[in-house]
Amino acid sequence: MSELIGAAIFGQSGGPTTVINSSAAGVIQTALKQGCITKMYGAAHGIRGMLDEEFYDMSKEDPYELDLLKTTPSSALGSVRYKLKDADEDPTDYLRLLEVFKKYNIRYFFYNGGNDSMDTCNKISKFMQKSGYEMRVMGVPKTIDNDLFGTDHCPGYGSAAKYVATSTMEVYHDARVYDTGMVTVLEVMGRHAGWLTAATALAAYKGQGPDLIYVPELPFNLEQFISDVKRVYEKNGKVIVAVSEGAQYADGRFVADSGVRDAFGHAQLGGVATTLANIAKEQIGCKVRGIEFSLLQRCASHCASLNDVNEAYMAGETAVLKAVEGYTDYCIGFDRQTGANGEYVCAPKLIPLSDIANTERKLPREWINAEGNFVTQEYIDYALPLIQGESCPPIVDGLPRFAKLAKIK
Amino acid sequence: MSELIGAAIFGQSGGPTTVINSSAAGVIQTALKQGCITKMYGAAHGIRGMLDEEFYDMSKEDPYELDLLKTTPSSALGSVRYKLKDADEDPTDYLRLLEVFKKYNIRYFFYNGGNDSMDTCNKISKFMQKSGYEMRVMGVPKTIDNDLFGTDHCPGYGSAAKYVATSTMEVYHDARVYDTGMVTVLEVMGRHAGWLTAATALAAYKGQGPDLIYVPELPFNLEQFISDVKRVYEKNGKVIVAVSEGAQYADGRFVADSGVRDAFGHAQLGGVATTLANIAKEQIGCKVRGIEFSLLQRCASHCASLNDVNEAYMAGETAVLKAVEGYTDYCIGFDRQTGANGEYVCAPKLIPLSDIANTERKLPREWINAEGNFVTQEYIDYALPLIQGESCPPIVDGLPRFAKLAKIK
Repeated sequence: MSELIGAAIFGQSGGPTTVINSSAAGVIQTALKQGCITKMYGAAHGIRGMLDEEFYDMSKEDPYELDLLKTTPSSALGSVRYKLKDADEDPTDYLRLLEVFKKYNIRYFFYNGGNDSMDTCNKISKFMQKSGYEMRVMGVPKTIDNDLFGTDHCPGYGSAAKYVATSTMEVYHDARVYDTGMVTVLEVMGRHAGWLTAATALAAYKGQGPDLIYVPELPFNLEQFISDVKRVYEKNGKVIVAVSEGAQYADGRFVADSGVRDAFGHAQLGGVATTLANIAKEQIGCKVRGIEFSLLQRCASHCASLNDVNEAYMAGETAVLKAVEGYTDYCIGFDRQTGANGEYVCAPKLIPLSDIANTERKLPREWINAEGNFVTQEYIDYALPLIQGESCPPIVDGLPRFAKLAKIK
Repeated sequence: MSELIGAAIFGQSGGPTTVINSSAAGVIQTALKQGCITKMYGAAHGIRGMLDEEFYDMSKEDPYELDLLKTTPSSALGSVRYKLKDADEDPTDYLRLLEVFKKYNIRYFFYNGGNDSMDTCNKISKFMQKSGYEMRVMGVPKTIDNDLFGTDHCPGYGSAAKYVATSTMEVYHDARVYDTGMVTVLEVMGRHAGWLTAATALAAYKGQGPDLIYVPELPFNLEQFISDVKRVYEKNGKVIVAVSEGAQYADGRFVADSGVRDAFGHAQLGGVATTLANIAKEQIGCKVRGIEFSLLQRCASHCASLNDVNEAYMAGETAVLKAVEGYTDYCIGFDRQTGANGEYVCAPKLIPLSDIANTERKLPREWINAEGNFVTQEYIDYALPLIQGESCPPIVDGLPRFAKLAKIK
């Protein structure tokens, strides 16, 4: 394929993760080394910054700070939840993007996000093709939800899973120190997919985890929950339950739907742990505690998976290298392979954007037990390699030293 | 003083911390080396196990597992919240203890806990003296609340502070990724003392922390809170507030008193973050999030302070050595000294149990700013040495390897 010379732009979108900045480092550091990429821009708040011409010259950043991005949580450039309308319906934003791309001769477009962001990439690429503007568009995946289609797993998931499993083990010890009964309910992120809630099973694999796990792939059955909790309580006096924020009843009601919606129309959930802990208290009368891992599970750089950090970087790097080679309209995915000594190997692959956009991948039914209250060994075997290796930022004064970008426009 | 030959017993009491087991290791490993200590018993669930003759022979434990206690969170022997009545009122428990101590020739009593536990130690010691039973009673302090009298700081505080400061920094990055306004309220443990909430200021010291800090040493003023939050929001669009679970209004009502009381009559608090986040939402109309660090802040061994872990061990070790020397009725405290090169040095000291029991040490008024919405540099200077050094358990399969005691009776 022919060489395409021009500037590149990179944006971050959707809810941040522990390793989205490691992908940013992969994109930026690799792009800065490519002769055909004349400028590397980082957009403030994703597509929003592109529309507003708010972007930074990444070549002006201190290389040490760029390197620190690998261990800095959240979205260093700023993220956005902005839904592009269909171009047929309202082409305003697309025309504006075309104008900006032409003005800066932007020919490479790298976008780091989840399902919605891949949809954004896909729409932009289609519009630019239709307009006859040559451009290479590559998606770099991220999501702690692990729900992207066509990939073995997603960058961001391994670190969130490691944090959730580690914290669950620690809470396990804390929640059983007294000689009195107690029910603890852990609330884990995940609207429609139970991948991250399932990660608490890694703690159970170590004998220090939950007794019961409820994922949103199956309807939440309150009667079963009560009878499950009572059964474990009568046997052990201590019960640890892990439940997805997205747990919903068979009629579609979320166990804890606060009624608030985000820009994509997704329910803003929260409070499942408290709701279920209170139900357990009413039913059993023992001490209860609801714990929400909240934002901590997606930003705990101090407890990240080194495999995840490295793979996130590789995803960014591969997106750039493939675009330079001539590929466009792909999202980077991961293929799980087995090394010469039987070890886990993660190789990059290309997934057409049109396949990945807006498709959610759920936990397979056969990885959930028949009773629907735990996950199987297949899940453990799948997840263990993803949480291997310890990554943490450099420590200064006993606290993490995160990247500080100069952000020169 | 004369040599006292006999068995020793050790118990853990009150809410666990990240390093209470490090103190346990200090007591147990040191006691096992003392010729005059004929047996080292670990009591299940503190005083409860002593009353019920439920205790374990610690010499039967694998030395490697005992060593792992240094990095294992929570109370490995089990804790208890059991309040002894005054001996004058009802001597039943004391008489039972005397019976058990005589039966096993227990002459050394080590108890690891907070204010209430030091009160327990004191009462037991006074009763045994009155009964003419020779015994040496030593308290080993612990509390993430840092509210014990007569000591520079308490074991457990440094690790909790390090976790709170680290997590606050990480949340800081996560909570400002969008280009829309947001108020985040962090709820930190602490009923009457704001030491741990103040630790969020360490994140602010790194430029990545809260804008406002409210501690329970001052009455919570809702009007001021609203005006403070509005002022920061108008300036920055993002507000991070840290508040103690124990925040209370001038009339004594807790901002989030659920009405539940524990065995000591203390209010079981929770929900301050959500309560205040909702108030901010009503007042400003922006997105809000309440985050409760919950149990995580007192059991996060994966992010412990090495200084704290070592000092907790030293407290246990010193209690045994001093008891063997002949001391009794003391709790181990810490004296802050300056080394030859101006460095922080922590030396053990002895505090009479009668001084420490039931006295709460609050954050000094002069370490809280005049407006009552932040802490001063004096606090930072005080707290920084306490969070230095990284301690974490050995990692196996990407997850912490915690101690597994055999618990042989």
